[in-house]
Amino acid sequence: MKIGILGTGDVGKTLAAALAARSHDVMVGTRDVRRKMTEKPEEGAAKFSDWLAMHKKVRLGSFAEAAAHGELLMNATAGHASLEALAMAKPADLKSKVLIDVANALGPWNEGPLELFIVNTDSLAERIQRTYPSTYVVKALNTVTAHIMVNPAGLAGGAHDIFIAGNDPDSRERVARFLREEFGWKTVIDLGDLTAARGLEMMIMVWLKLWAALGTADFNFKVVR
Amino acid sequence: MKIGILGTGDVGKTLAAALAARSHDVMVGTRDVRRKMTEKPEEGAAKFSDWLAMHKKVRLGSFAEAAAHGELLMNATAGHASLEALAMAKPADLKSKVLIDVANALGPWNEGPLELFIVNTDSLAERIQRTYPSTYVVKALNTVTAHIMVNPAGLAGGAHDIFIAGNDPDSRERVARFLREEFGWKTVIDLGDLTAARGLEMMIMVWLKLWAALGTADFNFKVVR
Repeated sequence: MKIGILGTGDVGKTLAAALAARSHDVMVGTRDVRRKMTEKPEEGAAKFSDWLAMHKKVRLGSFAEAAAHGELLMNATAGHASLEALAMAKPADLKSKVLIDVANALGPWNEGPLELFIVNTDSLAERIQRTYPSTYVVKALNTVTAHIMVNPAGLAGGAHDIFIAGNDPDSRERVARFLREEFGWKTVIDLGDLTAARGLEMMIMVWLKLWAALGTADFNFKVVR
Repeated sequence: MKIGILGTGDVGKTLAAALAARSHDVMVGTRDVRRKMTEKPEEGAAKFSDWLAMHKKVRLGSFAEAAAHGELLMNATAGHASLEALAMAKPADLKSKVLIDVANALGPWNEGPLELFIVNTDSLAERIQRTYPSTYVVKALNTVTAHIMVNPAGLAGGAHDIFIAGNDPDSRERVARFLREEFGWKTVIDLGDLTAARGLEMMIMVWLKLWAALGTADFNFKVVR
């Protein structure tokens, strides 16, 4: 399947590598391709161009090109940049497509206290849905760290859960199947319409405290029943 | 131990019954004792006076009397009424005591859309702490339904987790021990200072969606590592 992933951070790269390894035709999108290929990485991180050279099946394009490429789209941009990134796509290239929204509504890191910029009675996913009413937005995967998204079995044999929310039941079912078949998620909990994205996005706040308390991001929630 | 529980709803009654059964000297506090003893219950619910008659070791008092009674205090009022309830206590009766805050920052049920009245960069627990700086506020138990609070073993043998947050490490340790010894919690995850109450209180939003999706409140989170 042709998959367009907006965002070239850890989440975008991890999703792209995993999906390309499963023989999908993946393009990751960024704001400025030339700048991305030449940018100096943060200390200790690999250069993006080196990463891309090691993942030859993944192509790099602009946000617009990745949106045009994908039959299925994934928003893996930082939440505060998501709407701007989507606005660079041609509206027709978002229409009638499923967009899996993985982003969280956190402001830029290191700018003031930890704060969600959309919260409580609204969510980033709902704002994206309102902006693109003909796109099928499904919130998913935003409650785990990148490598667990694509390899749940790597943590406790996969005995933990992932959540989805979206207004279109068929799209939710399609994304649930995608998560099970591509990544091996055993339990995908369908929380119904996109208002559930509020709670899912607010989970980042307890997630970050757990990260600090446990000293690792390698954890996930299981809903014990 | 003398325990004062503010609130006579499901949570207050469940905590009181469980702690009295373990031979603690428990007083539950309400706004108006006479009114509480004569109030007509909601359809299908038991009269409070009948409940009290069946739990002879639990005493009923005003909010002020329950606060005066307890060496340990628990806030089991509805979140939107918590500060008003605490304001009815004599300040000296709150001073230097541990207050386990079980409340969630939800508005009154059936009034408009689901909404937290404190959220994101503040929490109900922090507001209580700021109002009573000499009280040791510890957020706990607000992420599970009442009967699981006092009997975690009743769900999957207790293989799920509870969280605490509070500014005073000794008080957190005291509450962690209390949860283990009185109720049998196996894993109490210490999330550090009271800013973690933000994430814990925001969990109610995904909790409510899970309740709807699963068709039962008999579930809890386990942090799989």
